[in-house]
Amino acid sequence: MNFASDNVYGVHPRIMEALSAANDGTAASYAGDDLSKRAETMLSEVFETEVRAFLVTTGTAANGLALSAITPGYGAILCHAEAHISCDECNSPEFFTGGAKILGLHGAGGKITPALIEKTLKGFIRGEHDPKPRGVSITNATELGTVYRPSDVKAISDLIRPRGMKLHMDGARFANAVAGLGVSPAEVTWKSGVDVMSFGATKNGALMLEAVVFFDLGLAEDFAYRRMRAGQLVSKSRYLGAQMVAYLENGLWLENARCANALARKLAAGLSQVKAVSIPNPVEANEVFAIIPRKLNDRLLASGAKFYDWMPDSLGNAIGPDEIFVRFVLSFATPDADVEKFVALAKG
Amino acid sequence: MNFASDNVYGVHPRIMEALSAANDGTAASYAGDDLSKRAETMLSEVFETEVRAFLVTTGTAANGLALSAITPGYGAILCHAEAHISCDECNSPEFFTGGAKILGLHGAGGKITPALIEKTLKGFIRGEHDPKPRGVSITNATELGTVYRPSDVKAISDLIRPRGMKLHMDGARFANAVAGLGVSPAEVTWKSGVDVMSFGATKNGALMLEAVVFFDLGLAEDFAYRRMRAGQLVSKSRYLGAQMVAYLENGLWLENARCANALARKLAAGLSQVKAVSIPNPVEANEVFAIIPRKLNDRLLASGAKFYDWMPDSLGNAIGPDEIFVRFVLSFATPDADVEKFVALAKG
Amino acid sequence: MNFASDNVYGVHPRIMEALSAANDGTAASYAGDDLSKRAETMLSEVFETEVRAFLVTTGTAANGLALSAITPGYGAILCHAEAHISCDECNSPEFFTGGAKILGLHGAGGKITPALIEKTLKGFIRGEHDPKPRGVSITNATELGTVYRPSDVKAISDLIRPRGMKLHMDGARFANAVAGLGVSPAEVTWKSGVDVMSFGATKNGALMLEAVVFFDLGLAEDFAYRRMRAGQLVSKSRYLGAQMVAYLENGLWLENARCANALARKLAAGLSQVKAVSIPNPVEANEVFAIIPRKLNDRLLASGAKFYDWMPDSLGNAIGPDEIFVRFVLSFATPDADVEKFVALAKG
Amino acid sequence: MNFASDNVYGVHPRIMEALSAANDGTAASYAGDDLSKRAETMLSEVFETEVRAFLVTTGTAANGLALSAITPGYGAILCHAEAHISCDECNSPEFFTGGAKILGLHGAGGKITPALIEKTLKGFIRGEHDPKPRGVSITNATELGTVYRPSDVKAISDLIRPRGMKLHMDGARFANAVAGLGVSPAEVTWKSGVDVMSFGATKNGALMLEAVVFFDLGLAEDFAYRRMRAGQLVSKSRYLGAQMVAYLENGLWLENARCANALARKLAAGLSQVKAVSIPNPVEANEVFAIIPRKLNDRLLASGAKFYDWMPDSLGNAIGPDEIFVRFVLSFATPDADVEKFVALAKG
Repeated sequence: MNFASDNVYGVHPRIMEALSAANDGTAASYAGDDLSKRAETMLSEVFETEVRAFLVTTGTAANGLALSAITPGYGAILCHAEAHISCDECNSPEFFTGGAKILGLHGAGGKITPALIEKTLKGFIRGEHDPKPRGVSITNATELGTVYRPSDVKAISDLIRPRGMKLHMDGARFANAVAGLGVSPAEVTWKSGVDVMSFGATKNGALMLEAVVFFDLGLAEDFAYRRMRAGQLVSKSRYLGAQMVAYLENGLWLENARCANALARKLAAGLSQVKAVSIPNPVEANEVFAIIPRKLNDRLLASGAKFYDWMPDSLGNAIGPDEIFVRFVLSFATPDADVEKFVALAKG
Repeated sequence: MNFASDNVYGVHPRIMEALSAANDGTAASYAGDDLSKRAETMLSEVFETEVRAFLVTTGTAANGLALSAITPGYGAILCHAEAHISCDECNSPEFFTGGAKILGLHGAGGKITPALIEKTLKGFIRGEHDPKPRGVSITNATELGTVYRPSDVKAISDLIRPRGMKLHMDGARFANAVAGLGVSPAEVTWKSGVDVMSFGATKNGALMLEAVVFFDLGLAEDFAYRRMRAGQLVSKSRYLGAQMVAYLENGLWLENARCANALARKLAAGLSQVKAVSIPNPVEANEVFAIIPRKLNDRLLASGAKFYDWMPDSLGNAIGPDEIFVRFVLSFATPDADVEKFVALAKG
Repeated sequence: MNFASDNVYGVHPRIMEALSAANDGTAASYAGDDLSKRAETMLSEVFETEVRAFLVTTGTAANGLALSAITPGYGAILCHAEAHISCDECNSPEFFTGGAKILGLHGAGGKITPALIEKTLKGFIRGEHDPKPRGVSITNATELGTVYRPSDVKAISDLIRPRGMKLHMDGARFANAVAGLGVSPAEVTWKSGVDVMSFGATKNGALMLEAVVFFDLGLAEDFAYRRMRAGQLVSKSRYLGAQMVAYLENGLWLENARCANALARKLAAGLSQVKAVSIPNPVEANEVFAIIPRKLNDRLLASGAKFYDWMPDSLGNAIGPDEIFVRFVLSFATPDADVEKFVALAKG
Repeated sequence: MNFASDNVYGVHPRIMEALSAANDGTAASYAGDDLSKRAETMLSEVFETEVRAFLVTTGTAANGLALSAITPGYGAILCHAEAHISCDECNSPEFFTGGAKILGLHGAGGKITPALIEKTLKGFIRGEHDPKPRGVSITNATELGTVYRPSDVKAISDLIRPRGMKLHMDGARFANAVAGLGVSPAEVTWKSGVDVMSFGATKNGALMLEAVVFFDLGLAEDFAYRRMRAGQLVSKSRYLGAQMVAYLENGLWLENARCANALARKLAAGLSQVKAVSIPNPVEANEVFAIIPRKLNDRLLASGAKFYDWMPDSLGNAIGPDEIFVRFVLSFATPDADVEKFVALAKG
């Protein structure tokens, strides 16, 4: 019963097979191989538009590199206060951007809104004494298991685009968002104003693979240099390309995400029946956040189940002294039986 | 007949099997898994001393991170003018170190000497108007296919250690150096004064794997933060650990290197018999550099063989107008028949 | 009637004379001149201990450079949310430190407390996924015109020192703090645990002059390199030295500060008598912050008086919709008559 | 007899008077004052075109900031191997640009040529494995006392402009170059293709003042943020503006430069008559470089004269074992009698 993270689970068999299949013979290195090129082509197909896609090895690198393409060091990026780039990456966005300010805003349910962004931008009134606002980053699905709808994304883009700001989407769990929303990848990204995204695959079945995907092709101009300089241009690049091809082929990525999302809904439904458990946010992707009694928390952990408690900052006064805020993450590979067993334990 | 690089070849089957074997069940992420821990333990065994080892995904990242542990942005690192960190990494060392100066020295055969270093250090006479010399980086095996012997390494260490400078070894082809030297890994590293090294595995059979290995454990103190900040802390870290364990187990790393080195010697021996071909440096690892007539170069390329021409800077006047300097890299996976066929072509 | 800032006023005549006096003949450049050396000696005398002092040209540079000596790019500095380093320096601390996180805490009256710091540090529980807390920066006098007493400073130091964190004091208005507190410079700095400070002079009568003063001499080790690299090693350094010598000589710095502080108290006393004006924080240095009716604000501005409205974040619900939060800064050079005239206007 | 540097001399009386004159009353801070604005206007007049000018405090900061406007961290700047940015600024260009490569080329007489630049650019053949060449920086007058003529500048611009590269001029001694050349400031800058320059004043009579002057106004777009972030936006900015106004007014800057240049020619003429002294480069500005016997060097130093020996790298084999390469810098404030006395000493 491991709900600690989607990254505690392994690689999907079809991706592992693709790695083996890619192992024959020689191949050009440093992204010159056919599989890397095919991965970019397939991403263009998935997004129904020409994109530039750069494969990298971690989500932190994808985010940092993507942000470096939209802000100089004297700029600011607005995001949610609990965004991964704000509080889980050890100053990595600052490192990649050369010192830009990452400004976390406090929005409900892990999401930021045009109103919040506008209010923040109104504080930038003193020219160069403030950093220059250059972009907004939203995570989809969010760090709190919710999703931005195309209309949510578009509303943010409509606000910031006229100000010359760019919109980044951290899609570490983008597949889960798309599966949860039931919209096309295009609709919730470039058609709604996203300029560049971090397209995650690792959490959803790959071994080690993220892509920085540019919809604003101008932003991609020198990106090959950025990737290289950051130590993210992999020599045996065919093994990144192979993962991406297998991940996208026949819709594996959405298949995995649908599976994980369904497990999340199942877990949420089960926990909802437990007295004294409340689920403050809608379960729209593959994560469930719950307020549970500390005693229950202790009992569940003692049973061997793995999950983390979470910062209750977003809950305001909704959490009592004997309660704890916890997170459960579901993977395509989480055994269905584990969910059932866990719910039974919680009820018991 | 692909001699373009060792990274155009695939992953050794035992390493690919190890990845599959690691794929069952759940595992702690972010270097908390058992395989990552075992990898560090095995590296301590290989080096016959306690080391701290941090697995990362590329050699460029390994070098940059290692250098960031030994120099601040106002420091200088001395290396060979043709060192990978000096001319192949798109300012990556500057990025990771926050702007340190990478000073390339012109030494024969891809190697720098205490005399060269000392002469350079004598130029640092104006206090803070110069950067502060903080380290030396040597590549072993070198970018020109030669090796530093333990006595070479120690002579450099003996010069710089009293000045508070640290010694880094770029071991992208360390296995080839060890195999070529016939010494223990310990002898040519910490026993000779190396403080930190980039321990390469990708070129020699891994999929994507390098380790930053600290012999000076104090330098490793905050290194986990550096790795994370650089986007090099892999979430599904078990797949890095698995590669390293398989790479070291039963001496696979040295077995592969010996194989590649033997092929290099065979190629060199064959080419030496060709009139008008000269091999300016000793062939001590898995690379062969040759001065060949342009006509022969064109004929070999036309035959479908792949190899690169190389900067002739190190040759001085040894190369004529109708000649070209070329590089051949041999891998454990290079077919023996390819070498024979190529030599026959060259002779014919 | 200019209360916009202390930096709208000029240079104290004794400092201007010192510049002229320093203009004869030749002098060593780049801090090698006698006046720069004497400035350092005099700062040691002022602080009653051996310090290392580095003269620079702006407070922003002094802060950034000082912070760079106590945190690497993967570190975090805790400060007040309204600290100059947090919201007035366009990412300069991030620039100088190579990307460190500047974490603003919300404390009453512009001050942070051990309790606030401790609570924040408790959030750093995830190792390298968070930055490493390396220091605390407090501003004295604060950006809200209050001061840290020696006991306030010591309480913070006692909390963070055992955790290996360093304490920085932004002393852009240090003279005003010392004058307001009536303690010795030593008592409120190193004797209370300050490791390094930005010692301001520009706002209090100099032309362009700040000093980074190290009490922890080990932190100063490579600081000359940092200053040079940042373009802050002035060639004709005698003119910085001359300013500092004149600023300290015969206690001019405290004389000026006492004058400005007295004017602030006078202004506050006058405004307190105005109905509907409230002064939320104690006036402990040379700044007065007041909540005033918008109508009064408009009338005062219309009269030609200059002062700025201020972010009301620190006031919570204490400010009404028809009120505005404003700042008045007093300088040694502010005409006494201006204060009287302004108070009369406000009353009228 | 101090020929060590032009920065060992003081401030021109007219500039010192201007500082005093600027000291009355209040003035807007942070470059909002009238004198700063007038300085920009006057620079536009001097250059006969609309420029954007940003006043800063040191030449190192001016250079670093200017370069940061033309290259990102993954870029490269080509310059002379003895350029100040390459070997006198402690990695400052790397700091300001976020890690760009400063590539020093070896040209005769302190100058680089289109041929040298073109040869270097031909080495950039491997895409993102190399940094991206983004600019060239030339110093005028050069670090070896020579000057670039308009035709020299234009030839470089004609080569690099079509490649998207920008041209920076380090004008720490620009007045001396203009005075030496007898051309207009416009002719040798923007009319010949310079995009941005560091316009020096400190060495030629100011107290502490340089300007970053943009001819390519697009490059200036966010420069106010860069200056602020670097701690170079001076609060009491009127004192920078006042210096610049006085420096330009009535041609003081060129008057001073002509005086210094004449002294340099006089010194060179005198030394030329000394047996065993040779002057390898033309004396075109305010510096004289000479090869002199070590014995003479020792005797002159013993007499109390101050001057520095210089790196003989540019001389090749032209210097013998008993000779030394020395530099003499002349200032507008160098006493004529000192030159005469020194020449007499050398002859004697």
